Amino acid sequence: MASLLVVGSVALDTVETPYGRLEDGLGGSAVYFSYAASFFTRVRLVGVVGQDFPQEFVDLIGSRDVDTAGLQIVDGKTFRWSGAYEGAMNEAETKKVELNVFGDFQPEIPEAFRDSEFVFLANGSPVTQKHVVDQMTNRKFAVADTMNLWIENTRDELLELLKVVDGIVLNDGEARMLTEEANLVQAAKSIQGMGPRLVVIKKGEHGAMLVSDEALFVLPAYPVETVKDPTGAGDSFAGGMMGYLAEQEEVTEGTLKKALAYGTMCASFNVEDFSLNRFQQIGRQDIDGRLEQYLSMLRVE
Amino acid sequence: MASLLVVGSVALDTVETPYGRLEDGLGGSAVYFSYAASFFTRVRLVGVVGQDFPQEFVDLIGSRDVDTAGLQIVDGKTFRWSGAYEGAMNEAETKKVELNVFGDFQPEIPEAFRDSEFVFLANGSPVTQKHVVDQMTNRKFAVADTMNLWIENTRDELLELLKVVDGIVLNDGEARMLTEEANLVQAAKSIQGMGPRLVVIKKGEHGAMLVSDEALFVLPAYPVETVKDPTGAGDSFAGGMMGYLAEQEEVTEGTLKKALAYGTMCASFNVEDFSLNRFQQIGRQDIDGRLEQYLSMLRVE
Repeated sequence: MASLLVVGSVALDTVETPYGRLEDGLGGSAVYFSYAASFFTRVRLVGVVGQDFPQEFVDLIGSRDVDTAGLQIVDGKTFRWSGAYEGAMNEAETKKVELNVFGDFQPEIPEAFRDSEFVFLANGSPVTQKHVVDQMTNRKFAVADTMNLWIENTRDELLELLKVVDGIVLNDGEARMLTEEANLVQAAKSIQGMGPRLVVIKKGEHGAMLVSDEALFVLPAYPVETVKDPTGAGDSFAGGMMGYLAEQEEVTEGTLKKALAYGTMCASFNVEDFSLNRFQQIGRQDIDGRLEQYLSMLRVE
Repeated sequence: MASLLVVGSVALDTVETPYGRLEDGLGGSAVYFSYAASFFTRVRLVGVVGQDFPQEFVDLIGSRDVDTAGLQIVDGKTFRWSGAYEGAMNEAETKKVELNVFGDFQPEIPEAFRDSEFVFLANGSPVTQKHVVDQMTNRKFAVADTMNLWIENTRDELLELLKVVDGIVLNDGEARMLTEEANLVQAAKSIQGMGPRLVVIKKGEHGAMLVSDEALFVLPAYPVETVKDPTGAGDSFAGGMMGYLAEQEEVTEGTLKKALAYGTMCASFNVEDFSLNRFQQIGRQDIDGRLEQYLSMLRVE
């Protein structure tokens, strides 16, 4: 089992969906990622919260196989995101963003975390992401997430980041925006040309595509019947994927495909309830059980 | 090998995509369906064209294993459709529709076609579709396609049709419109409640979902690198699916899944060029070769 580090946001989310409303619930990309990855391996979390961050949320994260030594608690208020989903719930309408202490976040990687081999840079400024990856001199496999904001506003910095990471995870709209390619296969190959040997394009309810030097494949999402809250699906996907790879300690065509399938399973559980509620009800055996069902769905004879 | 009948449009299409423009090319749902199905079985085609329909197009259809005894040539002009695709090319923008002789189409099923066991009612008025299915007293498996126009304007007639067909094929937007369910699994189940035991939801570049009494599965699309013209993809998909089922002569969970995979292959070839150009370059062995590659893509070990 290899070491896995994640750097990203820890947040208080207010979410409205046709299934209800959650106010100041536990969220943030590093949190969803950590919880999902912790089904597979031990996770090292680096993030920042304010004095208002509830102790029960620290305890909840700490109750998992997550090392929170890198979770700074500083003066000020915790990052807050507020959004709503309607209809097919494929995209959140962001109602409000208060960066608060996350706005000045300069990730300090604790000495004990510096030897991490697997690194996930959750969505954040590419400058900060590159600053982190440069510190991780023992890294074997570093993957970054990004979003439209950075593609539009800090494209040059993002291109610098892409030169040093092994992989990038982004959604279909972002892949098209970054490359100006309408076709997703061509978009993925074009992003590969920018540096990372692994490109994973998330398509939400439609699954994910992976392009690497050795492989090109598409896997569908697990057909979830009741999607209550899609928040964190992408980070849960990345957590399952990276958690499994760190557990396996190697990145091959075979482990990548299974990693994508595990990521898909984690995302499918996560969307079944608000915040981390669904994750709190399940264990690795539930994930493995659904994976078995999923793989049998994909078996054509 | 069971008999397969298709009733639907035969058209002259004018299509613009980022890859070029085709004027008055061979198109129509029954044509794409027949060509795709003819890779698997003999097809009986019922449709109508005007005096202006080029003889070379009749010859092209006739060069396949397609019985055109049901293709009426009547006074007037052939149905014409004109559309354009942009960007991700997921949806056509219809520029012009001239129904012409298709507007008064009253399908006459030739006596020799009446014993058909597998029946596909390509997109058309549900009244006409029901009129056809009622004549096919020997049918074992009748499947209909539909579209937003009929869901909006002739909902009651569509619901009557759904009571008598075995299966329905429609796209994700149409499934959501018909059921007012945002979730596709729930939409498919809700449509099942309207009558058909088989519901296939086409998601274009994202693949297809199938819900039947025995099965619920999703298969991704084959990742096509160059989509030149998506026109006819849905009908090619249906043609591959029904052609394979008629070839196998039975509808089970196993044949349905493979039928969906074959439909996916036919659609993937069809979109690689305008009109039926790509189909004219390939044979069953090419379809089987790509299927092998596709199944290996879906194999997770």
